Amino acid sequence: MSHLIEEVRKQQPLIHNITNQVVMNFTANGLYAVGAAPVMAHAKEEVEEMARIASAVVLNIGTLTKEQVDAMILAGKSANQAGVPVVLDPVGVGATTFRTDSANRILQEVKVTCIRGNAGEIANLAGVDAQVRGVEGSSDIDVQKLAKLAFETLQIPLAITGEKDVVVDQGAQVSISNGHPLLTKVTGAGCLLSAVIAAFISVSDHVTEAMSDAISYYNVAAEKAAEKHAYPGSFQVAFLDQLFEVDGAAISKKKRINRSL
Amino acid sequence: MSHLIEEVRKQQPLIHNITNQVVMNFTANGLYAVGAAPVMAHAKEEVEEMARIASAVVLNIGTLTKEQVDAMILAGKSANQAGVPVVLDPVGVGATTFRTDSANRILQEVKVTCIRGNAGEIANLAGVDAQVRGVEGSSDIDVQKLAKLAFETLQIPLAITGEKDVVVDQGAQVSISNGHPLLTKVTGAGCLLSAVIAAFISVSDHVTEAMSDAISYYNVAAEKAAEKHAYPGSFQVAFLDQLFEVDGAAISKKKRINRSL
Amino acid sequence: MSHLIEEVRKQQPLIHNITNQVVMNFTANGLYAVGAAPVMAHAKEEVEEMARIASAVVLNIGTLTKEQVDAMILAGKSANQAGVPVVLDPVGVGATTFRTDSANRILQEVKVTCIRGNAGEIANLAGVDAQVRGVEGSSDIDVQKLAKLAFETLQIPLAITGEKDVVVDQGAQVSISNGHPLLTKVTGAGCLLSAVIAAFISVSDHVTEAMSDAISYYNVAAEKAAEKHAYPGSFQVAFLDQLFEVDGAAISKKKRINRSL
Repeated sequence: MSHLIEEVRKQQPLIHNITNQVVMNFTANGLYAVGAAPVMAHAKEEVEEMARIASAVVLNIGTLTKEQVDAMILAGKSANQAGVPVVLDPVGVGATTFRTDSANRILQEVKVTCIRGNAGEIANLAGVDAQVRGVEGSSDIDVQKLAKLAFETLQIPLAITGEKDVVVDQGAQVSISNGHPLLTKVTGAGCLLSAVIAAFISVSDHVTEAMSDAISYYNVAAEKAAEKHAYPGSFQVAFLDQLFEVDGAAISKKKRINRSL
Repeated sequence: MSHLIEEVRKQQPLIHNITNQVVMNFTANGLYAVGAAPVMAHAKEEVEEMARIASAVVLNIGTLTKEQVDAMILAGKSANQAGVPVVLDPVGVGATTFRTDSANRILQEVKVTCIRGNAGEIANLAGVDAQVRGVEGSSDIDVQKLAKLAFETLQIPLAITGEKDVVVDQGAQVSISNGHPLLTKVTGAGCLLSAVIAAFISVSDHVTEAMSDAISYYNVAAEKAAEKHAYPGSFQVAFLDQLFEVDGAAISKKKRINRSL
Repeated sequence: MSHLIEEVRKQQPLIHNITNQVVMNFTANGLYAVGAAPVMAHAKEEVEEMARIASAVVLNIGTLTKEQVDAMILAGKSANQAGVPVVLDPVGVGATTFRTDSANRILQEVKVTCIRGNAGEIANLAGVDAQVRGVEGSSDIDVQKLAKLAFETLQIPLAITGEKDVVVDQGAQVSISNGHPLLTKVTGAGCLLSAVIAAFISVSDHVTEAMSDAISYYNVAAEKAAEKHAYPGSFQVAFLDQLFEVDGAAISKKKRINRSL
């Protein structure tokens, strides 16, 4: 079977992003590099219509406002009705009460297909104590334990990404150990990954597999970019190039995945 | 006569952009590379004042809200009173009712100097049926026929850009066949072109010529960038470099234009 | 004593930016390259909480709205109460009445630790006549005289940046003559510098020294980037790389500073 990245490139799914202002440009360029088509729209007057025609919807609360969260809920409900998958990226949850409350409001009102966040964000969202520093996750959390606990509480497939990435679903936990520290120097690296996961989910029937494949692909692209560039400016450019170039064969050679129950 | 790009670089026109959040940074950097000066301002309290001191105004509805469209109309009317040209970029028109209605509202209230969009957007704006997929245009439209029909309806000089570019005005139709497919992988390539057209129009008395010259220049820069870079990340960087470097002589060597009535 | 850049990299201060939409991505990537951690948040519901946990707050009015200025004042007051330094970047002051009034409103309600702007902005903010063209400063102002007059009026430490940079405080004036003209071709070069100054101030007890050190560091990085890249696209990428690479030793070799009373 071919890798899902080939399927993304064939189907060119339209990904509707309601996302933060910091990463909009990088997310759109990243989705183009992946082979998907981005659309950004957040006005309450149009989000329901846009979500319906999309292949997947991404809700990212990085620079949220009350109005934007309202629009996210409209878009999410519309996606739910139309059978369009919804990915939640709970950026900075735990840093302020407003973020935590808004993420919980979204989870109450929208059926979310999966969530991607760093350890600190997922720990806060699930009510596990952790200190979240800005939009950065704490690094001294036992991620596999967190994945288990968070899934028990949230009952939604999760991708917890950081130094090591873990995907968790009912009865399945996948560890992925590709990637490169330079990704932490690129603003929106996590946000774009959420959008890439959305693209992969939209062309697959298996959420966990789509999440794992998206993360492997993404991190192999980062490794290949870092082979030639050691600084964050040129790394970011090379990373977009690699998202465009990396194919199933390149991923197979490099990917390191462990599956467990 | 020297190419208009030289005139832009000499006059350094101030381009007031009310544009979408995805492309603001790229548009501003692109305008600097061209030799113009960008300013972004969208608060209703200041857009009239800003539009009056600008050399041209760009209205781009890519991530529109009701408030932003109101601000666009204030800016557009102020520009009209001051004799400042106005370029409309109807991003995604046809994808949602709100976009179509907003673009029509702008056209009713503001005297627009010219419009730049892809085939799908222009077809929708003019009421010619076409399926618009996100912000991407349909590729199987007869663009020269569309140009004719759309100009008959809208009675505004138009630039329809895509694989082939067409500029149309009363009694004139210009086809331009420079450019490179990698431009479709760069978010905001169309949006920046609208801003570049605004810069060219602001230093010329001939709208059609200014549009054609802007498009030739832009596409020659893309071709030169693509000679060395085959991937979208590094292509985008090289494209900004080429916008800065390309001069009238370089354009003359490469440009492919056909004029017809 | 080691250069403050080493201290920034050790402490990784969290910089809370309420800034304009054009430069958010570049500011965040720049702060990561410097070694700081960026956070962007502008909703009135969370800015007070975010400002309190930040190491410094940056208020930048580049694409201001009434709501955003309200949020800036909430964040600024909260920072004041928590003893967190506040940097004001009065982008485009003088271009419109709304900008000038908003900057003055912030100065009345928030105790600002220091201000960074170009000559035109500072001249307008201090009530010294100057013609500001968009967000660009006039270049024919006697900057050292301006620094003196502006400090007398505003009584706040100032960094006036442009071809030559001047830092002024009670009884001290520092001239810094590093830098490169290509910086003027990068959107948000001034805005990012304000954020970098915030990072330096947050790890120092001496505001003037922190401002001077930040500017020297920033401009040496620009010089080193310009040694290899003559065009704005590739220069910007190399500049981020150099912000990441340049250390105290590299700065010492290149910096050109004059101190006077």
